[in-house]
Amino acid sequence: LRVVIIGGGAAGMAAASRIKRLQPKWDVKVFEASRYVSHAPCGIPFHVAGYVESLDDLCAYDVSFFREDRGIDVRIGSRVVEAGDGYVIVERNGEVEEHGWDHLLIATGTRPATLSAGCRVLEGVMCVGSIEDSVYIRDAAKKAKNIVIVGSGYLGIEMVDAMLRLHKKVTVIEMGSHPLPEYDVEIGELLKRNMEKLVEFRANERVLEIEGRDRVERVVTDKGEYKADLVVLCTGVEPNVELAKQLGAKIGDSGAIWTDEYLRTSVDGVFAAGDCAETTNIVTGRSDWIPLAAPANKMGYVAGSNIAGMNVRYPGSLKSQLTSFLDLEIGKAGLSEKEAVKAGYDVVSATVISRARAKYIPDGKSITLKMVAERNGRVLGVQAAGVGVSKRIYGASALLYKGANVEDFFFTDFPFYPPKSPVWDPLVIAARNLFRKLGIK
Amino acid sequence: LRVVIIGGGAAGMAAASRIKRLQPKWDVKVFEASRYVSHAPCGIPFHVAGYVESLDDLCAYDVSFFREDRGIDVRIGSRVVEAGDGYVIVERNGEVEEHGWDHLLIATGTRPATLSAGCRVLEGVMCVGSIEDSVYIRDAAKKAKNIVIVGSGYLGIEMVDAMLRLHKKVTVIEMGSHPLPEYDVEIGELLKRNMEKLVEFRANERVLEIEGRDRVERVVTDKGEYKADLVVLCTGVEPNVELAKQLGAKIGDSGAIWTDEYLRTSVDGVFAAGDCAETTNIVTGRSDWIPLAAPANKMGYVAGSNIAGMNVRYPGSLKSQLTSFLDLEIGKAGLSEKEAVKAGYDVVSATVISRARAKYIPDGKSITLKMVAERNGRVLGVQAAGVGVSKRIYGASALLYKGANVEDFFFTDFPFYPPKSPVWDPLVIAARNLFRKLGIK
Repeated sequence: LRVVIIGGGAAGMAAASRIKRLQPKWDVKVFEASRYVSHAPCGIPFHVAGYVESLDDLCAYDVSFFREDRGIDVRIGSRVVEAGDGYVIVERNGEVEEHGWDHLLIATGTRPATLSAGCRVLEGVMCVGSIEDSVYIRDAAKKAKNIVIVGSGYLGIEMVDAMLRLHKKVTVIEMGSHPLPEYDVEIGELLKRNMEKLVEFRANERVLEIEGRDRVERVVTDKGEYKADLVVLCTGVEPNVELAKQLGAKIGDSGAIWTDEYLRTSVDGVFAAGDCAETTNIVTGRSDWIPLAAPANKMGYVAGSNIAGMNVRYPGSLKSQLTSFLDLEIGKAGLSEKEAVKAGYDVVSATVISRARAKYIPDGKSITLKMVAERNGRVLGVQAAGVGVSKRIYGASALLYKGANVEDFFFTDFPFYPPKSPVWDPLVIAARNLFRKLGIK
Repeated sequence: LRVVIIGGGAAGMAAASRIKRLQPKWDVKVFEASRYVSHAPCGIPFHVAGYVESLDDLCAYDVSFFREDRGIDVRIGSRVVEAGDGYVIVERNGEVEEHGWDHLLIATGTRPATLSAGCRVLEGVMCVGSIEDSVYIRDAAKKAKNIVIVGSGYLGIEMVDAMLRLHKKVTVIEMGSHPLPEYDVEIGELLKRNMEKLVEFRANERVLEIEGRDRVERVVTDKGEYKADLVVLCTGVEPNVELAKQLGAKIGDSGAIWTDEYLRTSVDGVFAAGDCAETTNIVTGRSDWIPLAAPANKMGYVAGSNIAGMNVRYPGSLKSQLTSFLDLEIGKAGLSEKEAVKAGYDVVSATVISRARAKYIPDGKSITLKMVAERNGRVLGVQAAGVGVSKRIYGASALLYKGANVEDFFFTDFPFYPPKSPVWDPLVIAARNLFRKLGIK
């Protein structure tokens, strides 16, 4: 059988690898528009900051590995320009060819959702789309005196962190009241206070124009004007769904490709996986669009398994996330209070500030952790900032995956090690505080 | 009503605090033999190493806090010498008095399980029992040239770590084939190789005699003889059950006090909690003795709740643990393969060596993680050593608490952050490897 995969990112290559493992004789073709496969856009800020030397390093494996070790017919520089029933038309170096398929996987990822002011309208105004953008940003940053980052979601935060490591002066323009707008204010304000020590953080401000003669000179907002010789737009992404629409695949409310729990689209023989596709939000049980790397890899694995003839259910994602701003770790699994309220839940929450270590080993560091639960006791989400965040988000992700309630959070036997945690873990304390608010125990 | 609590450690004070919160008018007495309450023996190695200055710092709170802020009648230097139906007899400063109780909580903790060679038989031979031993060990260590640590469980490892931070020459005598004998060889050998770089680690060796004229001079084993001017016996602990026996309470197979899921002993009105008591091992579902600080605190909370009239079930413990040897983190939740086999399970296991970070951010560090599962797919335990261990043991603890199988481990959406983890988490890779061995997916 012939499989065509559109997109050689995490989901596409995970699927291709899985299909060739299960069905070594099948013809598996991957068409990738860029020169890179299994590219890792999450790594861009670390490339800009100088941790990662070359763009090749930003790819989990190179083309020859997939071709020779895994027997996948990978074709780079190959853009699928049309997709129809049983065929795709691919453009490469100006030439066009047609390929047939029995199974098709759409793994087209995302592109930057730009402001109306736009990306690359002026020299020095950049989006963060493909890993190739990273070279431009890094080179421009080295020469820049005034850098403006627009947006302070994950990518924005990590880009600011990268610029600070290059010793640059940075201004951040954020529409919301604090960075990481999906987080609640208890965590967002803590991050904001940390950022304000080192950058000019402009909250509740909206970019109107990005101006300059030959190259960018300033960013104009509804409240002021900022000098800039490099502007990086970190204003989110949107899914690439044009080919899915051409095929007649259903698009979900989020704008991403609708899939069922086997990652089939509404069109027979056509699957979708990765950042271009919707799946289930495990906490709400509803369709959601969660473009993140770890889920994308698993979706590729599942879609590949099912294309190869298995019946593997993809349960969805918790939107679990970790990032950091210099020494401050920040993470979240499940819903923030504002997301939970928006989704219609009646919630209670508890915010705990806890030592990073056993009481008797002082170091002045702490973790702020917020837990949000439904009135029936089911936990909807955990967010935290400070030190020791990652282990709590791991623990919370695991319990949220299993639909746990506040009693489960209290009674889970988390390990205690004095230099790394207090004997009453902040997850346990938060759950205990919720007992009171829920009138149980 | 009158409540008597024997023992002012973690379990005893957690219970006392809980009872006074729920029943502020009750008379709650705590009899503690030492001068300290809510003392933290887990902190002893950190006191020896110099992180913790004074013994008072090793106590979560002092006596006056419990007396004045919480209204608990705490009596230190007060040893219960007899316990009977409705009364206890307490010795304090050579005087004896009787106190009545309506509810009794036994929270008598453990004592060192010494070799036949014994503790303090000679000057310079120490056990690690109460926090007061810590001062002696620290002072003796400062003067010592040759330190021998007998036993390399958690306490042994952490004591070796402390001695190395004091720049001491250390010999370790271990009966088993590697340190942390409850762990499997894949993790134990990794730790052993790390220790061997810095200390003389004698595996499979048994102490026969500890000799000296006025003070200790050497340790004689079945294979050799080691010069010593300080010997620290870290050969495990045993539960203090004499008073429970006097009361006629049932003792479990482990030698600790049997309790039901409400932490009641077999004697009406008498509860037991903390390191002296058995509870349920959540993985096996059987009674087990798991003397660890975090469970002890929760057992105190539960026993206190139930004494005060509630009906709170204590689900048990996973024996979750973390420790470290210099930079190497080590942790475990649930059963090792050898423990699982001993408990009668038919098991499969997978050991994964994984990068500490995303592939594109090189730092040479890694984590070794072993997952053990039953043939039906239920996961029985996870052990790991390296960097980034604690978050995996948090995640594993949460999933084991919920009785998760390999598919749950694979599909839990653990957060990905390039500088801190690879996109395929080692927990996920280990689960995926077990799919193959189990013939699923």
